[in-house]
Amino acid sequence: MYSIKLNDISTRASKDVDKNETKGKLVSILEELDDLQNLLYAESKHCLLIVIQGMDASGKDGAVRNVFGKLNPQGVMVKSYKAPTAEELAHDFLWRVHSHSPAKGMIQIFNRSHYEDILVTRVHKWCDDKLARKRMKAINDFEKLLVEHNNTSILKFYLHVSPEEQQKRLQERIRDPKKQWKYNENDFSEAKLWGQYMSMYEDCFENCNDVPWTIVPADQNWYKEYVIAKAVRNVLKDFDMQFPGLKK
Amino acid sequence: MYSIKLNDISTRASKDVDKNETKGKLVSILEELDDLQNLLYAESKHCLLIVIQGMDASGKDGAVRNVFGKLNPQGVMVKSYKAPTAEELAHDFLWRVHSHSPAKGMIQIFNRSHYEDILVTRVHKWCDDKLARKRMKAINDFEKLLVEHNNTSILKFYLHVSPEEQQKRLQERIRDPKKQWKYNENDFSEAKLWGQYMSMYEDCFENCNDVPWTIVPADQNWYKEYVIAKAVRNVLKDFDMQFPGLKK
Repeated sequence: MYSIKLNDISTRASKDVDKNETKGKLVSILEELDDLQNLLYAESKHCLLIVIQGMDASGKDGAVRNVFGKLNPQGVMVKSYKAPTAEELAHDFLWRVHSHSPAKGMIQIFNRSHYEDILVTRVHKWCDDKLARKRMKAINDFEKLLVEHNNTSILKFYLHVSPEEQQKRLQERIRDPKKQWKYNENDFSEAKLWGQYMSMYEDCFENCNDVPWTIVPADQNWYKEYVIAKAVRNVLKDFDMQFPGLKK
Repeated sequence: MYSIKLNDISTRASKDVDKNETKGKLVSILEELDDLQNLLYAESKHCLLIVIQGMDASGKDGAVRNVFGKLNPQGVMVKSYKAPTAEELAHDFLWRVHSHSPAKGMIQIFNRSHYEDILVTRVHKWCDDKLARKRMKAINDFEKLLVEHNNTSILKFYLHVSPEEQQKRLQERIRDPKKQWKYNENDFSEAKLWGQYMSMYEDCFENCNDVPWTIVPADQNWYKEYVIAKAVRNVLKDFDMQFPGLKK
């Protein structure tokens, strides 16, 4: 049906990727990131929006913590999107998202995002296909606004976890006292809708692709973190930034 | 050059419009408006965005005060746009506008608006033609978002004043102690750029017309207020609203 078939994409690093070597590379990328983020903030010409999507227990929170956790919080903001509030529902679906778009010099992370309005809402039939098409068009226009009118680079990550790994992690949430706070009584019923979620994601990758998606193999946290950190580092490096020097 | 030529449009009511009769009609329209606004708030299905643009001293503040001043402020919000702050400039030009878009049930008035980003900025060459075209596209997409994704009706009023009437009013601002606070030292230098402003307005009416503009003859305040009040009343009436009854 769609040209990206998630089933055909591995949720793990390929066999020739060495775990220890990759972890070593991650450490040095994170050091580079720290310098680049400082430069981004100092120069204040670009901004970076990072959208993280994925099924429950795909490791979104961990990605935020382990890739961005050591950066200066003055220049890094995280917005986690939950079910919309009454005030948010009284506005268009991009209202709550636009207000958190990054200022120049900033890295803004969306933990879940406006994409939920064409994902969870479609799976539960709160949004029909016709409305979904209109929302996709509005999302593309909105992302274009940020790119063209505020020098924003957008990185969109889909954390691609296998249903087996997800089940393992959900079970851990029940058993581990340090993870129980993450458990939600709907987690297992949502997991049963796996196939429908995958279709909606595939539709989204195909139709909201003016800014392309990165599918991140996410069964191994070390590899997921490496892929994300490297992509962020590469984008920041490409900005070719300079410290502004003394103000004139 | 553009199909709307402001020079060809009168800034006054036509001769057959009777002042006293019109003022009488305005009083009864304002009473209707009060009921309609209450119903809009109670039903909370629609929202209304009113954009007021015009040259200095064209009567924007007076329009806000005299048309909307007696409505319940709980359901009516006014946002006056001035020169952007540093924080606003660090975002795309629609960021500060979107955050004030109306919630369902609300009337939101913009006293000046996102249109300044293709008006004053172009006259002063802070925005070139190419960027102006891109902004116009972004404005049209943005207004479409509000219309299609939050059931918003948008009314855009240009208060059409003559340069002679403007000069008279600017002089009053200098003489009248109650109006001196409105006087700005740039008012007269801006007024000299009249022709350039008119061209930019004409370009804007032609290219940001997915939601059409109403050109309001504004040399006579009583007529201006009547035209605006009637247009707002008509739109609200067309919503064909109902009180929701007891909550189920």
